[in-house]
Amino acid sequence: MLIVMNHNAGKKQIEAIIKAVERMGFAAAPIPGSERTAIGVLGNKGYVDDSTVLALPGVKEVIHVSKPYKLVSRDFHPRNTIVKVAGIEIGSGKRPVIMAGPCAVESEDQIMKTARAVKASGADMLRGGAFKPRTGPHTFQGMREEGLKLLSLASRESGLPFVTEVMSPDTVDMVAEYADVLQVGARNMQNFELLRELGKIKKPILLKRGMSATIEEFLAAAEYILAEGNPGVILCERGIRTFETATRNTLDLAVIPLIKEMSHLPIMVDPSHATGRRSLVPPMAKAALVAGADGLMLEVHPDPEKALSDGPQSLTLQGFDKLMKELELLISFLGS
Amino acid sequence: MLIVMNHNAGKKQIEAIIKAVERMGFAAAPIPGSERTAIGVLGNKGYVDDSTVLALPGVKEVIHVSKPYKLVSRDFHPRNTIVKVAGIEIGSGKRPVIMAGPCAVESEDQIMKTARAVKASGADMLRGGAFKPRTGPHTFQGMREEGLKLLSLASRESGLPFVTEVMSPDTVDMVAEYADVLQVGARNMQNFELLRELGKIKKPILLKRGMSATIEEFLAAAEYILAEGNPGVILCERGIRTFETATRNTLDLAVIPLIKEMSHLPIMVDPSHATGRRSLVPPMAKAALVAGADGLMLEVHPDPEKALSDGPQSLTLQGFDKLMKELELLISFLGS
Amino acid sequence: MLIVMNHNAGKKQIEAIIKAVERMGFAAAPIPGSERTAIGVLGNKGYVDDSTVLALPGVKEVIHVSKPYKLVSRDFHPRNTIVKVAGIEIGSGKRPVIMAGPCAVESEDQIMKTARAVKASGADMLRGGAFKPRTGPHTFQGMREEGLKLLSLASRESGLPFVTEVMSPDTVDMVAEYADVLQVGARNMQNFELLRELGKIKKPILLKRGMSATIEEFLAAAEYILAEGNPGVILCERGIRTFETATRNTLDLAVIPLIKEMSHLPIMVDPSHATGRRSLVPPMAKAALVAGADGLMLEVHPDPEKALSDGPQSLTLQGFDKLMKELELLISFLGS
Amino acid sequence: MLIVMNHNAGKKQIEAIIKAVERMGFAAAPIPGSERTAIGVLGNKGYVDDSTVLALPGVKEVIHVSKPYKLVSRDFHPRNTIVKVAGIEIGSGKRPVIMAGPCAVESEDQIMKTARAVKASGADMLRGGAFKPRTGPHTFQGMREEGLKLLSLASRESGLPFVTEVMSPDTVDMVAEYADVLQVGARNMQNFELLRELGKIKKPILLKRGMSATIEEFLAAAEYILAEGNPGVILCERGIRTFETATRNTLDLAVIPLIKEMSHLPIMVDPSHATGRRSLVPPMAKAALVAGADGLMLEVHPDPEKALSDGPQSLTLQGFDKLMKELELLISFLGS
Repeated sequence: MLIVMNHNAGKKQIEAIIKAVERMGFAAAPIPGSERTAIGVLGNKGYVDDSTVLALPGVKEVIHVSKPYKLVSRDFHPRNTIVKVAGIEIGSGKRPVIMAGPCAVESEDQIMKTARAVKASGADMLRGGAFKPRTGPHTFQGMREEGLKLLSLASRESGLPFVTEVMSPDTVDMVAEYADVLQVGARNMQNFELLRELGKIKKPILLKRGMSATIEEFLAAAEYILAEGNPGVILCERGIRTFETATRNTLDLAVIPLIKEMSHLPIMVDPSHATGRRSLVPPMAKAALVAGADGLMLEVHPDPEKALSDGPQSLTLQGFDKLMKELELLISFLGS
Repeated sequence: MLIVMNHNAGKKQIEAIIKAVERMGFAAAPIPGSERTAIGVLGNKGYVDDSTVLALPGVKEVIHVSKPYKLVSRDFHPRNTIVKVAGIEIGSGKRPVIMAGPCAVESEDQIMKTARAVKASGADMLRGGAFKPRTGPHTFQGMREEGLKLLSLASRESGLPFVTEVMSPDTVDMVAEYADVLQVGARNMQNFELLRELGKIKKPILLKRGMSATIEEFLAAAEYILAEGNPGVILCERGIRTFETATRNTLDLAVIPLIKEMSHLPIMVDPSHATGRRSLVPPMAKAALVAGADGLMLEVHPDPEKALSDGPQSLTLQGFDKLMKELELLISFLGS
Repeated sequence: MLIVMNHNAGKKQIEAIIKAVERMGFAAAPIPGSERTAIGVLGNKGYVDDSTVLALPGVKEVIHVSKPYKLVSRDFHPRNTIVKVAGIEIGSGKRPVIMAGPCAVESEDQIMKTARAVKASGADMLRGGAFKPRTGPHTFQGMREEGLKLLSLASRESGLPFVTEVMSPDTVDMVAEYADVLQVGARNMQNFELLRELGKIKKPILLKRGMSATIEEFLAAAEYILAEGNPGVILCERGIRTFETATRNTLDLAVIPLIKEMSHLPIMVDPSHATGRRSLVPPMAKAALVAGADGLMLEVHPDPEKALSDGPQSLTLQGFDKLMKELELLISFLGS
Repeated sequence: MLIVMNHNAGKKQIEAIIKAVERMGFAAAPIPGSERTAIGVLGNKGYVDDSTVLALPGVKEVIHVSKPYKLVSRDFHPRNTIVKVAGIEIGSGKRPVIMAGPCAVESEDQIMKTARAVKASGADMLRGGAFKPRTGPHTFQGMREEGLKLLSLASRESGLPFVTEVMSPDTVDMVAEYADVLQVGARNMQNFELLRELGKIKKPILLKRGMSATIEEFLAAAEYILAEGNPGVILCERGIRTFETATRNTLDLAVIPLIKEMSHLPIMVDPSHATGRRSLVPPMAKAALVAGADGLMLEVHPDPEKALSDGPQSLTLQGFDKLMKELELLISFLGS
């Protein structure tokens, strides 16, 4: 931690800072500059709350060298974490994992049809929402437990493990009973009570980046899950909110290689939610793989025109099949 | 709803749209333009999911005239909602309500001292966090139920009703047992399971705007609470996330008069979280009142240097007392 | 400047940094931490380009204590700059200055009528655009020199000095011949060739904040003008671009007190462009004054329905007159 | 254009709108809805200024179906524009063009060395800045005309045509005398006087997207150049400004396929400025090509540690050579 003093901070103020730092149990090293003095804080074992210091007279700003996460950092865990789901390895660096399915489970027919089709096209996992977070209360909110049962059925029949969203701490156990991977949606990335609950179970968690979450906040959210004892976290970039409204969100692909530098956790990409437009999904899916993503999450619907949610960004079964053929070629190229 | 067709959309595509709209139970009115055709959708009673239509060939975009909320809209409820808390009226347009207290309850001494002091300075309500959402898991997370008990004690002794944050559906009942107003923090604005649960209780809810929530999403979140039967929602602007990092957030004061046009719900401002800097709190507090805010939420700490969270943005007891004297003059001026 | 090393940076890398810093003519002070080492750079007289250091192996990040501006900083010039325009003082802290007029000069009748009316209502200066920056080339681009002549005429007749925008270095002299204050629009805040040219003239410059300019960039843009010898810069907040689209921009009022802390330059507010909605202009105008703004820039049009640009955010003559009466009361209150 | 009326707008207000629209020379078609009325505007030949209408009583909002650009739209020019530079074709869809070189020309030795090296590695064009836009005035601002001469020399010797930035209308002729392609930087994307001047010359223009420019504004800026008679515009995505500060900007790759849908102009990507970090340039360069970019602009410096600007994001000569080998394989794969 570095404490930067005001231009005109006097000797007394600097001494007060040094004492305050020492009272916190750390050592203080003043660095006089030509314009102002800075004070280095030594001996801290992790992130330090800077409130005490920031409130003292003469302090201009406090700069953190340590971060609000540690367990997820590659600094302390240099090897990639590989998350295993029913024999599939996510994060091994060998082969990206493809999760595909509808935004929401709508009926047995819809989910069975989709599961069979995406399996035939080469998907590794099934996705589908039973609990749906929607902007307003007057639209379809998901089939809830009934949806989980249909997902299980489709999973068993197709042989594909499945991932589905969980929205509150009290439904974690219920969802965990059915799902192979539990997803935390973007709106819940900082629902800390939910994250803590997910840290106590044994199943892998797919954590989506919040709409306006910095990478530091994203990793700190994952830290909540690891801190409770669950090491199986898969990160997922799904676009961030910016001033641009031509796409639903702005897909931030540079976080893929950047998070690979900062953390050992696997990271996937959801180009469907990121772009919100079907025509942009295939190019962004490919770009994500080339950027190093450990997997893709793709929305596929047998009849997007009639989808109860996110129809415009869902691929048709044919569209998904075509994309998978192209992805296979790309994966072969990247692996060669 | 208006459906805008592609430049080169042909007659067949337009007819397919009209049929699709009719299948949805609405009427379709084509508006031929010099460059492209648009199709108006008539007869919808509220927000329509546009997925079906967007997915049809030839459609360029869909424009919504209706909104994802209705109960919170001033269109359908022209008179101001006045939320009553222990005899205090919020949203009456008469006198803004001042809620003050520490970011987090830290000890009996701290909260009692603060409660007495803010009462003496003229505050109407006490605020204080027992459950604290923090970026990372390694910092102080609040005293939880113990904190609620201390808040109750401080409330009884000072005679000030209190507001405190609730973070998960399963703690709603517990928090409601103690608190006069339950607060939903910015990170939980779209925690829909929590909102639904809060819609079922009889106590007022203070709903903070999410860091990157549009006004439409903010109002739609309030709609969740009203839709479950709880009409007592107080909105609170607390700054949004932008590219500017010199302040903690960007305080968006224009939403005050704008939300007053759009909704009948009261709206307050939290200049402490919005700016993150003690020196900016007084000018922004005054600006908020002049802009029409129904109240202020202010962080006050007897010893901000030692605060476990948000010290740099907390006013001292003296600072709060000075500000209250200035606010009193301003309130008199505005009321005259 | 502080250089933060990677977790695993070795002794050799640290020594290489120290040498590189010394080669730049500065002294280096290593600060060993429990997790990583940081190196303080001492002796720099201002902002240092960090490229050289950032490119060396082992460096995690470089943190600047110095800033890219100096002349505009209050650190080095503690007293407020007061800009004088035809006997009016801007930035004196005594009385805010009101500049009012149409977005664009459209005709002699329009500008004369407006000038007379805003003068009668109590405005201090006239505003009006002769050169108009517009998103696309197919809309009205301003009357150019003809517009300057009409502004001069209106200024002489009303007795109000006027401010108008200049868009390119080669028209600076022409605009300076007519105008009392030259305005740099938000889109040109980093048009450095224009800023340099404006630094060479003797007339005051009103510099609007860029749509996505940080405060640091805003002050650094002003520094360009001061560095060329022109000390008369008036800053103007006009809203920033964020994800929120319900208002034209997001008015960032917290910058008013913040810039007052950081710089000695006067700062005004333009609530018309910031909000883009007539109904929001009066509350935001008042909030700006309460926040400490040195003045307001307001769009007024005798017939907003027929305005060639920005009609929806322009006040009518009656609306402006009413607002001025309210502002007078507020100014008296603030001054008392 | 669609005019949406307020919920409670009466018959008289609607009739006033219809008359106003007819006065503008268009036809008006009212569309009564269950909640409110909307009025379609027919017969407009392009973008209509909505000020007049928005200012009328009862109007809630105005929705544009037409856009502020036309010449750059694919609607009216379905075939790709191919920009030719010294025998190289940009936008043909056959082979992406690689432009490489230092951020700024610093010396004859530096630019000659770089030109030879990037040519040897397979670059198609040389890039280098002679006029440098910098945040503050106290850092290196470029070698200006001397830099242009060195670029010419390096271009002649290496056989690579070159692109360089132009910052003001009065230097357009000078820069055009030397350069093969003239670049407009992000800060000048809406420097309309500069754009107009560039529309009058015969050389191709590389237009970078502004830091906070929407796609619509980006295309409308290009429209300024085409409207003056110069059809040779190459667009360039270089990252946008968002809340995320871990990367210099947020690279918005989804605009590549999206702009291809909307416009016939070629579009390139600059991963160096977008990310600001050398390690992220190769993965983003590859992702850009996979997303369909017509070319890449890459910063390369023989000694990035000593670069006067943008060192941390510059590739070394070896790094560029390695990347080119990987890009060649990818280009072959994509072309197969």
